[in-house]
Amino acid sequence: MKTTKKFVLTDDQLPEYWYNVLADIPHLDPMLNPKTGEVLKPEDMEPLFARHLIEQEFSRQRWIEIPEEVRTLLKIYRPSPLVRASGLEKALDTPARIYFKNESVSPVGSHKLNSALPQVYYNKIEGVKCLTTETGAGQWGSALSIAAKHFGLDAEVFMVRLSATQKPYRRMVMETYGGKVTPSPSDTTAAGRELLAKYPDTPGSLGMAIAEACEAALTRPDTKYVLGSVLNFVTLHQTIIGLEAEKQFEIAGDHPDIIIGAFGGGSNFGGISLPFYRHQVEGKRHYDFIAAESTNCPKLTQGEFRYDFGDSSGMTPLIPMYTLGHDFQPAPIHAGGLRFHGAGAIMSELFKEGVIRAVDIDPKEIFETGIMFSRCEGIIPAPESCHAIAAAVHEAVKCRETGEEKVILFNLSGHGLLDLKAYESSPK
Amino acid sequence: MKTTKKFVLTDDQLPEYWYNVLADIPHLDPMLNPKTGEVLKPEDMEPLFARHLIEQEFSRQRWIEIPEEVRTLLKIYRPSPLVRASGLEKALDTPARIYFKNESVSPVGSHKLNSALPQVYYNKIEGVKCLTTETGAGQWGSALSIAAKHFGLDAEVFMVRLSATQKPYRRMVMETYGGKVTPSPSDTTAAGRELLAKYPDTPGSLGMAIAEACEAALTRPDTKYVLGSVLNFVTLHQTIIGLEAEKQFEIAGDHPDIIIGAFGGGSNFGGISLPFYRHQVEGKRHYDFIAAESTNCPKLTQGEFRYDFGDSSGMTPLIPMYTLGHDFQPAPIHAGGLRFHGAGAIMSELFKEGVIRAVDIDPKEIFETGIMFSRCEGIIPAPESCHAIAAAVHEAVKCRETGEEKVILFNLSGHGLLDLKAYESSPK
Repeated sequence: MKTTKKFVLTDDQLPEYWYNVLADIPHLDPMLNPKTGEVLKPEDMEPLFARHLIEQEFSRQRWIEIPEEVRTLLKIYRPSPLVRASGLEKALDTPARIYFKNESVSPVGSHKLNSALPQVYYNKIEGVKCLTTETGAGQWGSALSIAAKHFGLDAEVFMVRLSATQKPYRRMVMETYGGKVTPSPSDTTAAGRELLAKYPDTPGSLGMAIAEACEAALTRPDTKYVLGSVLNFVTLHQTIIGLEAEKQFEIAGDHPDIIIGAFGGGSNFGGISLPFYRHQVEGKRHYDFIAAESTNCPKLTQGEFRYDFGDSSGMTPLIPMYTLGHDFQPAPIHAGGLRFHGAGAIMSELFKEGVIRAVDIDPKEIFETGIMFSRCEGIIPAPESCHAIAAAVHEAVKCRETGEEKVILFNLSGHGLLDLKAYESSPK
Repeated sequence: MKTTKKFVLTDDQLPEYWYNVLADIPHLDPMLNPKTGEVLKPEDMEPLFARHLIEQEFSRQRWIEIPEEVRTLLKIYRPSPLVRASGLEKALDTPARIYFKNESVSPVGSHKLNSALPQVYYNKIEGVKCLTTETGAGQWGSALSIAAKHFGLDAEVFMVRLSATQKPYRRMVMETYGGKVTPSPSDTTAAGRELLAKYPDTPGSLGMAIAEACEAALTRPDTKYVLGSVLNFVTLHQTIIGLEAEKQFEIAGDHPDIIIGAFGGGSNFGGISLPFYRHQVEGKRHYDFIAAESTNCPKLTQGEFRYDFGDSSGMTPLIPMYTLGHDFQPAPIHAGGLRFHGAGAIMSELFKEGVIRAVDIDPKEIFETGIMFSRCEGIIPAPESCHAIAAAVHEAVKCRETGEEKVILFNLSGHGLLDLKAYESSPK
């Protein structure tokens, strides 16, 4: 029997619209202005963000057109394949059918480019010359660096100090693409200097790097800030993952029951799950949506739902979210992308409503899972993605025990080729 | 205008047969037995190689079926995309249309898996339990490690010492996949000990590593040798690249005039060019085939056509080839895959006949080219692939000068994410 391993789409089948879930969650709590405590107005965000992105942040329009210039560049690596994890199924001896969306085929190695390209594009058409941002493991910073280069803008990336040390190759990727990398906290911003004075030996955190990047954007000419997760418009851009997957499941003649993503700020998980969620809103389907977070940063399972800042210095708007507190200092795990204290507003709301559930994955488990996956499917996964794989494995093992033929979809958000140092210490 | 950036094929369109160019070069000089100096007989190769592979080495059958078990695993990453290098065209302001076959989407990062999978498969069905091989930059060793794991065999990789030092991440990839890595020359073989005594400070070479891997295969039970280039059957397996490209050019409604590949032993370049060459044999088309070698290892432009060994210790059959001498010690350039003293028999014959031509690329040029390409097309290329890109750039610049709208195809044989150390020292 000939096996279909993966389901591909042509350039023509690249989605023309993003799905904006806010059309289906009109009751989402608003963000608040950090200075006044009042409901955040679009103009409050203008010092930091491009106007088009602010419009998307507040938009309730269900479908938002992807600009043709962005689609052209997305086609460098998209549509990404939907892959049947037949090797993993066999290794687990499960009746479940497991699929993954292979975002690791992106030239920067992860899904982050999906949002970097439109964010840079909108800034460009509004005349911005330079962009600042933070990066954890370096995936987002790499994506921003090449996206900025494509559109002719400069990029400065504040990279969590721990990751800058753990992942020197990521820094080199950013520099090869023309990005400027500053380990954070740094002495180049007031926020950085204050953090260094308070925590001289800190490994840094995404919250700290965000504070520095925001300050740099606010204080320099022609400069705006961009970010790789948390906000609604980032999740919007990532819905291209799930929208493609939906078309690919049609080709496969199958449909997912369980949809899983690693959970940092929420855009990766939202990107793959929200386009399916709209069928649930319409009462047509029901899904088991699972956010796989780290036991070291368990904002959904252990956090509190309340207003909190997105950064550690209180510069961002107040976001209604599950949070461990904006001064939470996560342990130095290798899955840098999951070391964020809070969950974005959309996914927080859906968690509160019971639409999605969360599982915590132990860091001790993830490299074991990554090695097994790499030997079954050939791809060495990013530490972040290992959380999604581990959750998928748990579900597939349950199916083996119950005999249920569930269909599991997870997002392989990135490869781990630049995270190999982390694999090195794991027993083979 | 909507741009088609890449041309994809579905799993069903994966070629079912390899093209064996020996059907069209029946006059190819035979290999010789190194001990007797007589024409090599298939049985002479049996101590080292699987019988099916020896059959392929000698076969004159034009089309050879790809086993279904191999096709199933090839589908993990194949068919690979044919990509229009529109970013590069724009940067060069050339009327040429440039396409590349993106072999970097392979989970091991290069085209090498195309031959690793069938080589392991044939060994497996013949009862072999362990495989030995050499690797330069580590691309082939990574491919062999995961291919062996897929089929349940053990793999030991003798890795050129220089590359083992330059590219620690490559070693980690092999170990993650379950391969055993031994820096070469090593004290684990007689050949290695002899080389170490003679050249104590040697950075190693592919020829030396081949000698060790062959000895290990000959002296251990249930063990055979596999290799990543040079021999006819490796080139045969790599023709899948050109066969896919041919179908993809049909979809694009275009056809290449110039076909370029980096040149190490010849399988990468042969893989993309030979399927097109068959149309030239039939008198239907004419192509400008360009082998891009390194000025540091210029076997085609500076070598001599004669019988020589494939390894540095004289253990392999004598091959009719362009060679710099089997004891040639190439400079320690980063493009480890090109540090081989000779050219495989097929490509040597075609070079002698004037069917292909060769250009030498200066190591100083390749990272500059790689950085330019990465900023135009998003993909950081392997140092080996930079040679092909540089040759393509030279041709595209000629087109700019002459105004000719030539169609250039090159093989992007791999990405450089694990070669970033080499990029680091290059000016950005």
